[in-house]
Amino acid sequence: MTDRDPMEELVGLREGSPGSPVTLQELWGPCPRVRRGIRGGLEWLKQKLFRVGEDWYFLMTLGVLMALISYAMNFAIGRVVRAHKWLYREIGDSHLLRYLSWTVYPVALLSFSSGFSQSITPFSGGSGIPELKTILSGVVLEDYLDIKNFGAKVVGLSCTLATGSTIFLGKVGPFVHLSVMIAAYLGRVRTRTIGESQNKSKQNEMLVAAAAVGVATVFAAPFSGVLFSIEVVSSHFSVWDYWRGFFAATCGAFMFRLLAVFGSEQETITSLYKTSFPVDVPFDLPEIFFFVALGAICGVLSCAYLFCQRTFLGFVKTNRFTSKLLATSKPLYAALAALVLASITYPPGVGRFLASRLSMKEHLDSLFDNNSWALMSRNSSPPWPAEPDPQNLWFEWYHPRFTVFGTLGFFLLMKFWMLILATTIPIPAGYFMPIFIFGAAVGRLLGEALSVAFPEGIVAGGAVNPIMPGGYALAGAAAFSGAVTHTVSTALLVFELTGQIVHALPVLMAVLAANAIAQSCQPSFYDGTIIVKKLPYLPWIRGRSIGSHPVTVEDFMNCTVTTLAKDTLLEEVAKVVTSTDVAEYPLVESTESQILVGIVRRAPLVHALQAEPPSWAPGQQRCLQDILAGGCPTEPVTLQLSPETSLHQTHNLFELLNLQSLFVTSRGRAVGSVSWVELKKAISSLTNPPAPK
Amino acid sequence: MTDRDPMEELVGLREGSPGSPVTLQELWGPCPRVRRGIRGGLEWLKQKLFRVGEDWYFLMTLGVLMALISYAMNFAIGRVVRAHKWLYREIGDSHLLRYLSWTVYPVALLSFSSGFSQSITPFSGGSGIPELKTILSGVVLEDYLDIKNFGAKVVGLSCTLATGSTIFLGKVGPFVHLSVMIAAYLGRVRTRTIGESQNKSKQNEMLVAAAAVGVATVFAAPFSGVLFSIEVVSSHFSVWDYWRGFFAATCGAFMFRLLAVFGSEQETITSLYKTSFPVDVPFDLPEIFFFVALGAICGVLSCAYLFCQRTFLGFVKTNRFTSKLLATSKPLYAALAALVLASITYPPGVGRFLASRLSMKEHLDSLFDNNSWALMSRNSSPPWPAEPDPQNLWFEWYHPRFTVFGTLGFFLLMKFWMLILATTIPIPAGYFMPIFIFGAAVGRLLGEALSVAFPEGIVAGGAVNPIMPGGYALAGAAAFSGAVTHTVSTALLVFELTGQIVHALPVLMAVLAANAIAQSCQPSFYDGTIIVKKLPYLPWIRGRSIGSHPVTVEDFMNCTVTTLAKDTLLEEVAKVVTSTDVAEYPLVESTESQILVGIVRRAPLVHALQAEPPSWAPGQQRCLQDILAGGCPTEPVTLQLSPETSLHQTHNLFELLNLQSLFVTSRGRAVGSVSWVELKKAISSLTNPPAPK
Repeated sequence: MTDRDPMEELVGLREGSPGSPVTLQELWGPCPRVRRGIRGGLEWLKQKLFRVGEDWYFLMTLGVLMALISYAMNFAIGRVVRAHKWLYREIGDSHLLRYLSWTVYPVALLSFSSGFSQSITPFSGGSGIPELKTILSGVVLEDYLDIKNFGAKVVGLSCTLATGSTIFLGKVGPFVHLSVMIAAYLGRVRTRTIGESQNKSKQNEMLVAAAAVGVATVFAAPFSGVLFSIEVVSSHFSVWDYWRGFFAATCGAFMFRLLAVFGSEQETITSLYKTSFPVDVPFDLPEIFFFVALGAICGVLSCAYLFCQRTFLGFVKTNRFTSKLLATSKPLYAALAALVLASITYPPGVGRFLASRLSMKEHLDSLFDNNSWALMSRNSSPPWPAEPDPQNLWFEWYHPRFTVFGTLGFFLLMKFWMLILATTIPIPAGYFMPIFIFGAAVGRLLGEALSVAFPEGIVAGGAVNPIMPGGYALAGAAAFSGAVTHTVSTALLVFELTGQIVHALPVLMAVLAANAIAQSCQPSFYDGTIIVKKLPYLPWIRGRSIGSHPVTVEDFMNCTVTTLAKDTLLEEVAKVVTSTDVAEYPLVESTESQILVGIVRRAPLVHALQAEPPSWAPGQQRCLQDILAGGCPTEPVTLQLSPETSLHQTHNLFELLNLQSLFVTSRGRAVGSVSWVELKKAISSLTNPPAPK
Repeated sequence: MTDRDPMEELVGLREGSPGSPVTLQELWGPCPRVRRGIRGGLEWLKQKLFRVGEDWYFLMTLGVLMALISYAMNFAIGRVVRAHKWLYREIGDSHLLRYLSWTVYPVALLSFSSGFSQSITPFSGGSGIPELKTILSGVVLEDYLDIKNFGAKVVGLSCTLATGSTIFLGKVGPFVHLSVMIAAYLGRVRTRTIGESQNKSKQNEMLVAAAAVGVATVFAAPFSGVLFSIEVVSSHFSVWDYWRGFFAATCGAFMFRLLAVFGSEQETITSLYKTSFPVDVPFDLPEIFFFVALGAICGVLSCAYLFCQRTFLGFVKTNRFTSKLLATSKPLYAALAALVLASITYPPGVGRFLASRLSMKEHLDSLFDNNSWALMSRNSSPPWPAEPDPQNLWFEWYHPRFTVFGTLGFFLLMKFWMLILATTIPIPAGYFMPIFIFGAAVGRLLGEALSVAFPEGIVAGGAVNPIMPGGYALAGAAAFSGAVTHTVSTALLVFELTGQIVHALPVLMAVLAANAIAQSCQPSFYDGTIIVKKLPYLPWIRGRSIGSHPVTVEDFMNCTVTTLAKDTLLEEVAKVVTSTDVAEYPLVESTESQILVGIVRRAPLVHALQAEPPSWAPGQQRCLQDILAGGCPTEPVTLQLSPETSLHQTHNLFELLNLQSLFVTSRGRAVGSVSWVELKKAISSLTNPPAPK
């Protein structure tokens, strides 16, 4: 309409601020479309990020936090261990002083660890994975994930780990517990700040991801972190959980390794226990047979280990002396056990045959070594150096009289019971790493034997490919730890730890063989602990083919369920409430119809009954309906079983939805209930058909 | 009691056969305890093996069978490809003849593949993974897993693959389909021989394991086989499935590689696309940034690809000309498309810039190469050999005028639409491998650019670590294929394929970045196909935080459910049955009470109604109760929802138990039903709140 010069128009637009320079907004002023486009794009981006965001930010924070804690703990422990080594080296040649300097350190650390952590909270002992598994299956363990436990667990664990290979314990389990604690805490913080209430299934998703972070920040292994934690803590999982876990675990592992680079320990991000197996022919084809045999050996050994461990744990709990000691003075028990373990590992004594001067990392580094020690020591007998030689760690495993076979065998023999003893000490500690090293030693022993039996390699034709005992150590570690924990992902773990995946198939086959044996004979380490600790758990339905499919809810439900009808008199309600102690009662329409309409929780009902004025005149009888109308809350029944539902379906439901109990209705009438107790009974009667024993 | 000499007793025991030599049984005769012990042990072993056995044997058979098929197919294809190469080489220098020999081969093969497979069964086209996903979520696709399709798919796929890199298609998808077909067939055979009827959940477990076998026998990658198949075909899975999958996949992968060793292709069992990245410093720390950026680029590209692919697929289906061609003469369409693709890849023509003389395996081998082509070609310009040089495959990627950047860029540009065109051809073919190679080329391009930008490596201090474009190709392949299929396990796949895991963290981060972008913008390749093919599917609940938790069944259930009461008159029943066409009706106690008591399927009801003698005298009215008593079967309601059940719980139930529909009861009364339709509506109204568009 106007014929004004565009420049004039621009000037006209900034009438309000004459003389001021052209601002960005004014410059963009004439292009409303571009401006709107950009603004829209930014809005879209913001919305996208925000929509997907929330959870991702949460998971990233969790990963980074755990990585920081893991790195800081490693750093602190490294210093303490170095101080111990220095003390032991500088104290002179007096055997008594050396012995004292070797043993007093772990004894003091362990008794402090036990005393400190147990005085703050009784939940800080052990690995925490069994309890986590119970929590994730729907049981509420009060305060177990409280942030209060955090300090106790961190300090206790640091002390435990600072004892090094003397006590021979790891850090995976407690780290999973710590990570889950932080996740629960962050979840509560988020709920408080955002105001949005989290429901239980979402909480559980976060906890599973947190467990993955725990494993990933210890081993810097995101893949196996996710898979291992899923295998260990849950029985069903959604692909969605798995992606969450990957994201969080990657953040954690990346941060953890990044810190190592910044701490100048590494030049770049690499794996923890780097190996250098040749890529072209890592193993000859017939060796596959020995790998599978190694898996079977590890499977059998793991059964023996699990059985002895569970039995000994039971023995310690029932024996008069030890149970009293554990009940009254845990630090003393820890100190005694530490004294025994430290005395045995005293290097100039028996420890000479246990390679006890090596740290746990050095144990693994040496066991994964390419070369055959037996063949190398044939030519020249290596000396026993005053200090472990970082270039030739295997010298520690060699003894001129007993050779490497003697020391490896002795190591296995002794560590078998020492490990079992160590698991009874009430301190925060992980039991995965020692088992892993034990398995590596089993594999190494077989590998060394093979390398002596076939010094030229197995396939003689063409180029000679000597047998690498390190490959067997790798397979042994994966197979034994996999069998003890009933997991397959340990096979992946060894590859992520070593940065090489050349043994993929043989290791996987060894792990599967070991698992086949272990799973059919013994409950896993964590399930065993759940059983010994008498935590609630839901068994699997094993041997799915043998007649488990026709079993329906009708066959095993609890038929004697106490219902409360709306027309029940208050007197009777009071009687029912006092005579039973279930947490919730099914509410039915009337005594006659028994139509299920809701659930009444015990606590508010008792409360309402107590608040009721005792004016129960004979003529004016009040019934349950009245208190319900008066404000006693009822809950809706969201899911109900039928008598015709199959056992499998019920089991799936309980597992997936983390249920504790469900009511059974037939034509609307409440006819029974099913809880873990009934399910357990039904499952155990499947596997062991009722018969006189 | 007797004082006989034990030797005499032994002799006395073999009175029946005097003079015969002592048999084993007789020797053992006198030690009944040992004998019993051994027999007991054997019995126990037998029982153990048998108990766990059945399924394991089944899975092993499946793995071995698939490996044999995969190997045999590779062998046959190799021969055909070699014959084609020979023909092309020997036909002389006439351009016309060379062009014809180059194009006629794929045209003939593809039109045969299309004609043959489509004439036998319409189900043999495409990859089969989308259909499998639908089947595993509970939908019955008739005949899709019938063994009849097997031959058509094998022959068709072989022809498709024999065209090599001209048509540029893979084999993963069809192999998953083949494996699942065999599993379903073996399952039916087992049911027939043992007589035990399989229930549906067990069948599904087997199918998931079979999918893992399919992937594992193509890539010889058991870990990623299991994870990829789980991510692609299901949304929930149990740890039990996962172990099954591992066992079957390991058997398959082992057998597949074993055959390669026996076929003298390999000296021992190794990975398919071996790389030789340096282990010490595979990448400098700052390169992590470029890896993540590469992931983001791949994510954006994958969105573009998915969008174009879906649009073009829709266009081909709706366009008058192509839809007619596809409906009436599929082989002609296939031949035309093959002619276009083959003409473009003709090596002396445009194919010169597409490295089209390389097979798909050589494509990958060359793209994963350590060295920087750009730096190598700076010093000396390599020639274009008459034949691809196996030692220097990268010569194919180099052009003196356009350099490697030109060819790589042109390759990406052309393959983008050529791949989309290839996916529309109705033949049995996999679409994973081409996507994988495309991603590798994207990564390679970035890697080459970086190696030119930082010829001395990024961290200048200390030893020089030049940038390896091969690492970027690895990350690009994983990220792009992961983004297109919405999976994370492709990150693991590249490690299993190359036998090295040194880039674990950067590759995983790239894949996560790519997935974050792709998943928030586009449905996956398989979901997209499901949508285009109009197969039924259940969407995910995305963006879980935004107000999805308070939604309950009451809000979205279908309230207008037609119930049949036991006292309904037959006339009315007939009216209901003819006026509606649902598969099952809820059976209620009486018209008045509406208490749900069971389910009546439509088919037997119609049958019973037809069999009913038409003697409906006005005085003697018969009702539904009478036919039910007369033998019309009803089914029990095993699971029912309440109006208060949340959307999440319902979604979980449907997904886990592979349900199609459930009835909703309130106080026993049937008040509604929920099926996929209602769930889909509810979920879509969550993500897109109802608003006028």
